[in-house]
Amino acid sequence: MPRFDKQGLLIAIALDSQSKDVLMVAYMDEEALARTRETGLAHFHSRSRGKLWLKGETSGHFLRVEEIRVDCDQDALTLFVKPEGPACHTGARSCFYRKLEGDALVRIEG
Amino acid sequence: MPRFDKQGLLIAIALDSQSKDVLMVAYMDEEALARTRETGLAHFHSRSRGKLWLKGETSGHFLRVEEIRVDCDQDALTLFVKPEGPACHTGARSCFYRKLEGDALVRIEG
Repeated sequence: MPRFDKQGLLIAIALDSQSKDVLMVAYMDEEALARTRETGLAHFHSRSRGKLWLKGETSGHFLRVEEIRVDCDQDALTLFVKPEGPACHTGARSCFYRKLEGDALVRIEG
Repeated sequence: MPRFDKQGLLIAIALDSQSKDVLMVAYMDEEALARTRETGLAHFHSRSRGKLWLKGETSGHFLRVEEIRVDCDQDALTLFVKPEGPACHTGARSCFYRKLEGDALVRIEG
């Protein structure tokens, strides 16, 4: 079963189950994982706010979780999700919408 | 430019640039990112050993980095890589070779 680190957290990577694109990455504590499994909606733990966070709670852009994979060390998860809207708070489909080129960040999608 | 957290780390997710499969996830500090960019081979920071780690140093299974993407908060990266062998120390192609089903972990690839 998943193992949480000294801070009680593990890494959760949300992937679009259709395109396989990485949408976002955040942390989960035990509560966030339990709520995710109970509801089928991705919940995370906000390190800055120190509390549970239902992704889409304010935006309506929930991530419906279809499958959860676990890594060899059991301290990281990949969530295969169906996104209900853009995953990024900027309105981008994925939070990873820029690439590093030399010293510049170059936008790769609209 | 990338921002490191209070521990001086950011999350780095390695993806197969061909299949887009998530291969592994680890942490990078500033040194690991600099060495990765200099050499084109993925370097990470081992939290347990507290030091720089060239992926493949002992196994020969290096990850050749073709592109680096940065997330909205600039505290996580996706590395698009060409893997030179299995990415996982268990010999699996990806570290995420099991899924959560109820209370069980079920192997999804050989």
